Amino acid sequence: MASLVLCTLSRTLRSSGRLRSACRVDLLSGPWASRTVGRRQMSARGFASGALGKRLLWATGGAAAVVGAAVAGLSHFQRAEMATRTETVKDEEGNVAERCKKFMSPPVTPVELLEKRKGEISSRMEMLIMQTQAEFCRALEEVDGGKFRVDRWSRPEGGGGISCVMQDSKVFEKAGVNVSVVSGHLTEEAAKQMRSRGKVLKGKDGKLPFIAMGVSSVIHPKNPHIPTVHFNYRYFEIEEEDGSKQWWFGGGTDLTPVYINKEDAALFHNVLREACDKHHSNYYPDFKKWCDRYFFVRHRGETRGIGGIFFDDLDSPSQEEVFSFVKSCAKTVVPCYLPIVQKHLNDSFTQEEKDWQQVRRGRYVEFNLVYDRGVKFGLATPGSRIESILMSLPLTARWEYMHEPTKGTREAEMLDVLRNPKEWI
Amino acid sequence: MASLVLCTLSRTLRSSGRLRSACRVDLLSGPWASRTVGRRQMSARGFASGALGKRLLWATGGAAAVVGAAVAGLSHFQRAEMATRTETVKDEEGNVAERCKKFMSPPVTPVELLEKRKGEISSRMEMLIMQTQAEFCRALEEVDGGKFRVDRWSRPEGGGGISCVMQDSKVFEKAGVNVSVVSGHLTEEAAKQMRSRGKVLKGKDGKLPFIAMGVSSVIHPKNPHIPTVHFNYRYFEIEEEDGSKQWWFGGGTDLTPVYINKEDAALFHNVLREACDKHHSNYYPDFKKWCDRYFFVRHRGETRGIGGIFFDDLDSPSQEEVFSFVKSCAKTVVPCYLPIVQKHLNDSFTQEEKDWQQVRRGRYVEFNLVYDRGVKFGLATPGSRIESILMSLPLTARWEYMHEPTKGTREAEMLDVLRNPKEWI
Repeated sequence: MASLVLCTLSRTLRSSGRLRSACRVDLLSGPWASRTVGRRQMSARGFASGALGKRLLWATGGAAAVVGAAVAGLSHFQRAEMATRTETVKDEEGNVAERCKKFMSPPVTPVELLEKRKGEISSRMEMLIMQTQAEFCRALEEVDGGKFRVDRWSRPEGGGGISCVMQDSKVFEKAGVNVSVVSGHLTEEAAKQMRSRGKVLKGKDGKLPFIAMGVSSVIHPKNPHIPTVHFNYRYFEIEEEDGSKQWWFGGGTDLTPVYINKEDAALFHNVLREACDKHHSNYYPDFKKWCDRYFFVRHRGETRGIGGIFFDDLDSPSQEEVFSFVKSCAKTVVPCYLPIVQKHLNDSFTQEEKDWQQVRRGRYVEFNLVYDRGVKFGLATPGSRIESILMSLPLTARWEYMHEPTKGTREAEMLDVLRNPKEWI
Repeated sequence: MASLVLCTLSRTLRSSGRLRSACRVDLLSGPWASRTVGRRQMSARGFASGALGKRLLWATGGAAAVVGAAVAGLSHFQRAEMATRTETVKDEEGNVAERCKKFMSPPVTPVELLEKRKGEISSRMEMLIMQTQAEFCRALEEVDGGKFRVDRWSRPEGGGGISCVMQDSKVFEKAGVNVSVVSGHLTEEAAKQMRSRGKVLKGKDGKLPFIAMGVSSVIHPKNPHIPTVHFNYRYFEIEEEDGSKQWWFGGGTDLTPVYINKEDAALFHNVLREACDKHHSNYYPDFKKWCDRYFFVRHRGETRGIGGIFFDDLDSPSQEEVFSFVKSCAKTVVPCYLPIVQKHLNDSFTQEEKDWQQVRRGRYVEFNLVYDRGVKFGLATPGSRIESILMSLPLTARWEYMHEPTKGTREAEMLDVLRNPKEWI
């Protein structure tokens, strides 16, 4: 099972765990509001999305949230519907088998099945993540000159994945782009966590079939003036006794530069905001905050990088609309990153700059091994494909005792931003 | 609060958590028996030490364990008593103030207080850990030619520590030797965990004063033919309502080579066995197994290195006897490691060997950030001294996707040992 799916699973299954960990964040990190609080605020602003939004609806008898949605949602729905209709036609036309030929590998689900079920969201999402993987890998290959190694793997319990890795190449120290599509039955523990999270699930003979899929990527370039990027877009579906399905989407893209470059930061955030704004004016500001909170290295009091967007449990207003939003996000992975790579491709750098990059790589490792829920869940799950999970770690990293940049340097400027997240637009 | 004390605290406070995590180890790692099982087996062999031993005593009405102890313990107690008497006289004679002058820094507790309470175990243990730090640091400085940076820090809640670090020196890439002596009151959470662990604690007005102290060290040499070493010896004490004290010791030393050298492994384990055998013939075999189980990187199916000894919760047969055993262990840190450093000081090495060392360093980071209880507890505790906790991370590390040594190479030989722990004596 690859990191992506484990990510999906863990984010999905953390349930009461999330509430608890959110509380812990509050206690430990002072000014950092918990995600739960963040989501409640979002709901209170007339943005009743996701499971928590629904719970708020129940709690308030629905009145406040419904009024909020009615007031805030009108132009949003109109815009979204238009965007959805136009993009579906453009992106998803053409024969499935023909489209699959452009992928890095045949998809996990047999092509005939994808063709047969091409109207279903799970099939459309699988096509989207395969296409995102292919487009991103090709763009990186073009700028680097190297080729991705493609590993196709399967999982005895159901499903599998495609891991694409380019290591120690011309531009990239380590570039990994993972797809996974995993299915099976929720374990008792997972089902229990779902219930404690407020999801009412009725399984047939106690069994709850699920499908989880996504694309995830981490790119570590060699040149310290080219930032590291990470993205992850995922979908989860559980089938209940009566055949009905509970589903939700999650994802995000975030940037981790070694040095602050305001232009790069503005470009990156602007591309993301544009994708968000097509769907809801609250998406960018809310998911930007969520991102800063999630990628927080608590024991250092620093964010991992300059953020981007992060969201989870998106299950409203409609499956079509959320899928359309996720598709808009997935389509940004090339335009939000490749122009920055191109721009700094030939920047010269000193040994000191390389060392500072290595220290920041160390912090990246700390976040991924200590906090990242997908990684933690993956490492604790028997039968995980460890190499796909830990593909996100850099080729090299460094830990210097008591490292603190001198005041007034560009390294100190970077740290300051990590300690005090900024608005980039 | 430094890693060592956090280590002590977390090992001490994990309580039911240990039982749970032990069960998880069983489920996830197949042949690896849990530590709890290990301890029960030890007790069943007439070795009724520690809290679990005591619980067994209660559970059986004491009969079996007492008979066991009476049969197995006779020559052991005589031997231990002799060893204790001789060593106390030799090691602890002389004026406390005079002895403190040889330390890397003044001790955490004021010298006058240590002098006044020089008969108490906590004072004697603080002198022992300070002395161990000094002897080990001096020996490393002698072989390296460099000097340790000495940082003295204090903790607002009570106590403090002395962190000694030598970084990027001639022989050592990163060498850290930490002492910490921390005191205060158990938090409600900690006290609750103690209770769930079977410790019946009666605090005055609900308050439970504690003191935790220890010495801990990780040494990463530059030359891949010189192994990494880690040790940690610690003491914990809680005062109850009536003024009586609950106390226990923990500790261990383990070696992480990059390449197998049977002679080195035999020397290292022999020095440890000799120290153990002076106190109980079961100590070495039992604590060797415990070490292999504890330093297991579950998601890789590998031990961190070739082990050594590891023990916790030692609180019988008597405080004097356990302290004497810990002292014997602490006295091995120079003779079990420095001869190996000396031997390989001028070994030549290739870039491939250096790369393999860096990959192994990556695994070391994985263990420390994902599994080490002291590190996990430390990172989650507000006010921790992060730099002392993460001092154990190497200066540099490497993660290669799908790295697998070629069959028949020395790298493959190393991996085979890590996957199948061996007896070295």
